[in-house]
Amino acid sequence: MNLDLQRYLPVLTWGKTYNRSALTNDLMAALIVTIMLIPQSLAYALLAGLPPEAGLYASIVPIMLYAVFGTSRALAVGPVAVVSLMTAAALSQIAEQGTMGYGVAALSLAGLSGAMLLGMGIFRLGFIANFLSHPVIAGFITASGLIIAASQLKHIFGITAHGHSLLDLSVSLLHGLSELNWITALIGISATAVLFWIRSGLKPRLLALGANKKLADIAVKAGPVAVVIVTTLAVWAFGLADKGVKIVGDVPQSLPPFTLPSLSPDLIKQLLLPAFLISIIGFVESISVAQTLAAKKRQRIDPDQELIGLGAANIGASLTGGFPVTGGFSRSVVNFDAGAETPAAGAFTALGLAFAALALTPLIYFLPKATLAATIIVAVLSLVDFSFVKRAWAYSKADFTAVTATILLTLLFGVEFGVSTGVVLSIFLHLYKSSKPHIAEVGQVPETEHFRNILRHEVITEPHIVSLRVDESLFFANARFLEDKINARVACDPKIEHVILQCSAINEIDLSALESLELINERLREMKVSLHLSEVKGPVMDKLEKEHFLAHMTGSVFLSHFKAVTAL
Amino acid sequence: MNLDLQRYLPVLTWGKTYNRSALTNDLMAALIVTIMLIPQSLAYALLAGLPPEAGLYASIVPIMLYAVFGTSRALAVGPVAVVSLMTAAALSQIAEQGTMGYGVAALSLAGLSGAMLLGMGIFRLGFIANFLSHPVIAGFITASGLIIAASQLKHIFGITAHGHSLLDLSVSLLHGLSELNWITALIGISATAVLFWIRSGLKPRLLALGANKKLADIAVKAGPVAVVIVTTLAVWAFGLADKGVKIVGDVPQSLPPFTLPSLSPDLIKQLLLPAFLISIIGFVESISVAQTLAAKKRQRIDPDQELIGLGAANIGASLTGGFPVTGGFSRSVVNFDAGAETPAAGAFTALGLAFAALALTPLIYFLPKATLAATIIVAVLSLVDFSFVKRAWAYSKADFTAVTATILLTLLFGVEFGVSTGVVLSIFLHLYKSSKPHIAEVGQVPETEHFRNILRHEVITEPHIVSLRVDESLFFANARFLEDKINARVACDPKIEHVILQCSAINEIDLSALESLELINERLREMKVSLHLSEVKGPVMDKLEKEHFLAHMTGSVFLSHFKAVTAL
Repeated sequence: MNLDLQRYLPVLTWGKTYNRSALTNDLMAALIVTIMLIPQSLAYALLAGLPPEAGLYASIVPIMLYAVFGTSRALAVGPVAVVSLMTAAALSQIAEQGTMGYGVAALSLAGLSGAMLLGMGIFRLGFIANFLSHPVIAGFITASGLIIAASQLKHIFGITAHGHSLLDLSVSLLHGLSELNWITALIGISATAVLFWIRSGLKPRLLALGANKKLADIAVKAGPVAVVIVTTLAVWAFGLADKGVKIVGDVPQSLPPFTLPSLSPDLIKQLLLPAFLISIIGFVESISVAQTLAAKKRQRIDPDQELIGLGAANIGASLTGGFPVTGGFSRSVVNFDAGAETPAAGAFTALGLAFAALALTPLIYFLPKATLAATIIVAVLSLVDFSFVKRAWAYSKADFTAVTATILLTLLFGVEFGVSTGVVLSIFLHLYKSSKPHIAEVGQVPETEHFRNILRHEVITEPHIVSLRVDESLFFANARFLEDKINARVACDPKIEHVILQCSAINEIDLSALESLELINERLREMKVSLHLSEVKGPVMDKLEKEHFLAHMTGSVFLSHFKAVTAL
Repeated sequence: MNLDLQRYLPVLTWGKTYNRSALTNDLMAALIVTIMLIPQSLAYALLAGLPPEAGLYASIVPIMLYAVFGTSRALAVGPVAVVSLMTAAALSQIAEQGTMGYGVAALSLAGLSGAMLLGMGIFRLGFIANFLSHPVIAGFITASGLIIAASQLKHIFGITAHGHSLLDLSVSLLHGLSELNWITALIGISATAVLFWIRSGLKPRLLALGANKKLADIAVKAGPVAVVIVTTLAVWAFGLADKGVKIVGDVPQSLPPFTLPSLSPDLIKQLLLPAFLISIIGFVESISVAQTLAAKKRQRIDPDQELIGLGAANIGASLTGGFPVTGGFSRSVVNFDAGAETPAAGAFTALGLAFAALALTPLIYFLPKATLAATIIVAVLSLVDFSFVKRAWAYSKADFTAVTATILLTLLFGVEFGVSTGVVLSIFLHLYKSSKPHIAEVGQVPETEHFRNILRHEVITEPHIVSLRVDESLFFANARFLEDKINARVACDPKIEHVILQCSAINEIDLSALESLELINERLREMKVSLHLSEVKGPVMDKLEKEHFLAHMTGSVFLSHFKAVTAL
């Protein structure tokens, strides 16, 4: 029982040995992450179409719940770019941004996603996430980065635009250009440029000026806060809000409120698919960060328990005015690099953000939305990476097809359609590949007991024997292919008396394939040709022995292909 | 060009060598098949909800077109039970039986299915049919047999009933029982009993009485015609039609009419899925019969050309007052056994049926529908076979799940839903199985160079080396599983310095799996553990060498696992 509790409450494991040194490290990490998270949380709320405080709320209780239930020591949970974009896309189908309904739907989406994650964790269904292949992930992340960046351009230029695919957005942006606000554009473009420079140029510059590495790193992380402060002061000092620069405005000074998501069946039904995709994609992003960081300290991540941790975090978000959250890449790396040792660092971060929500919100009244948009653009453009496409092209055409299709479909029709179609496509391509397995006709390498592809090597063959090696497990999708192949080979050559299947690469034979083998055996019998097997693996042999197939087979089973050919 | 023409027009191949002996054999086979087909065609039209003449029309032009385009020498194309049931199910969504709209929709369904088959043949997409696993086929055929039999009970008892799932039908039948017509029930039940006896008891009886085998066979085939004649005469002689026995009634005396299917976009959209399923299922039934018969004479069937043949047949059906057709099992076997040598036998059968449509239809005016229903019931109950379920239970739980789910879903919700869900389920189960591949930790068998599962054999292991053998190709669905497995194994045991993956069973590594290997390599590097590969297959090695992975790998690639362990 105690052990079980420890499985479901990892906090019991690390909590027992918590000490002063860990506390110091965790507090330090929490401070750095808090500073970094304040502008990021506000920005992602904007991206999700929600009021800025929702971003803070979504980072407080969820991070604490993850600290209790999660297995990663360094993962920082909260709003992330892709999930925020998907939230906006899902909610736009349901309500207008800024309405009560929109905010309530965000709570429902987080609650539903939390329940799904929790369910998958309890029933150990984490493997579902494995169907998201790397080409699909890479494709939709790159496409999402582009869409998110495009969606923020309206804030940069101070115009209005709508849409959740690149096409909609572009059209809408072009229409809006006539109402361009020059001051906003100036702030937006310079903030973006400065942020890019902070990311890429600041650190080498500081190091060149003789600063030490740690200080340079902190400067880079704190840079966005400086941009926030400068632009906010500029708007305040020059009264730019009256000149059409859109600002964050009044943000309530409050701890996260207690909220209840709507459970209306209609709403739930509309949110089912988006919630499922958000859960899976959030889980994949989170687990991959968690495992990478855990490996650095030889720690273990339990994927099923991670689902429970993320599920609890999302349910927490839905009860405290938030929206869907997951473990984010950049914040977790910052947390880890800053020396976080236990999930307590996350809890301290939450306290820092709670303080910000309670005390600091009046300070961001004049913060221009263009600055937040610049923060988002700089963050997401680092996600855009076409190198995977090039790599896939060189490595495998199927992977290339999957990644390009996912990118294009996501750009054209949005993340949900892009991802769903990408998953179906990559499953289809995988099945297609295994439905036409490599079947080599093999012959004996002279003076050895080895057999190789007759098309690639100089080998000895006998006119009355056909030796075929199937390089794939046999199952329903390729069973008929084998039937056709053998039929085509034997029907045209009346000299053939024996067909030997070399089974060394066959890891499994399902019932469809077994019935195909029986059919092949019967058809060969009609043609007066015997069917033999060689080099059948142990587990496959075990299964075949449970059946009558071997007894009805016209030929025999040989331990090695050499023995088979010699005997015949 | 000439060769190409021969590929697309197989008639050119067999037509060149056609001679008197083949002609005699083909004529004889055609006569027997024609006699058998007359009641069957009428019955399947009834099953599809169409007027009886549609069954005759659907057997005339389609059979001739198949003779020109098909590659099987013995396949007999026409209405078959399962496809007729699916036709009725699809059309019931669109129009009332007996209306013009219903008949026109049947033409559209045949045309659409023909176009799909033709398209799949031209673009060589026949592999799509491979996704229909044997459990799904076995399941839906058994369930269809039960549904078809149930759907005919109303004719046997002379009551009205509707529905396309067993549940709907049963409820409807029970409601209808109050209007039971005793004379119809008498005819229906005795016809069914006699037909069952003809199938199972007649032949042994005749043989026991000293008849020769061929004669006995013909008697069995002609038996249903005798039942048709006797019941028709009974209805006529005793004026039973006036006593409520439903009869076939007026059937136009005509050759197949020229008809045009409706191409209304709404109708096409509604028919898309049913037409697709009918095409795939019809193709699977047809190709499997064709290949079995071809093997008996060492002939070859070209699956892509078969699609073209069936496509042409269905388009023919849609232009001549028919409905969807395919190559039927029983009629093809009869055709083959009766000595058909070329598709010309089919053409002669078509002439025989054309004569029947033109001259014999007045003779079936008094044919009771109960007799036709009895013909169908006896034919389809032979399809019902639960032995596959038992076999699947013993062989593999995944196959068992697929077959039981398909049977239950088909019975409860109809063929379309049952088959679609069955296909998705069997794909999912296959992916699920390969997403959790068998990964064995192996050790050295003492005094040999062989390595075996440490759980099954007494083997030697080294504390600083972990040897893992993956019994499955690596691809996106199992890549993360391998990550978790290695991570879990290594993180808990600080003595480990080397991980060796024995790759002898890995036929492919897709890009997702390659990236997982890179991640595993990086994570192991962080833990100060080296990753090695052994026994990598040639084609897999070729692909890996195109990438940088091998250069970045912390360990080496070994030709044999023994060499790897010795070296470390």
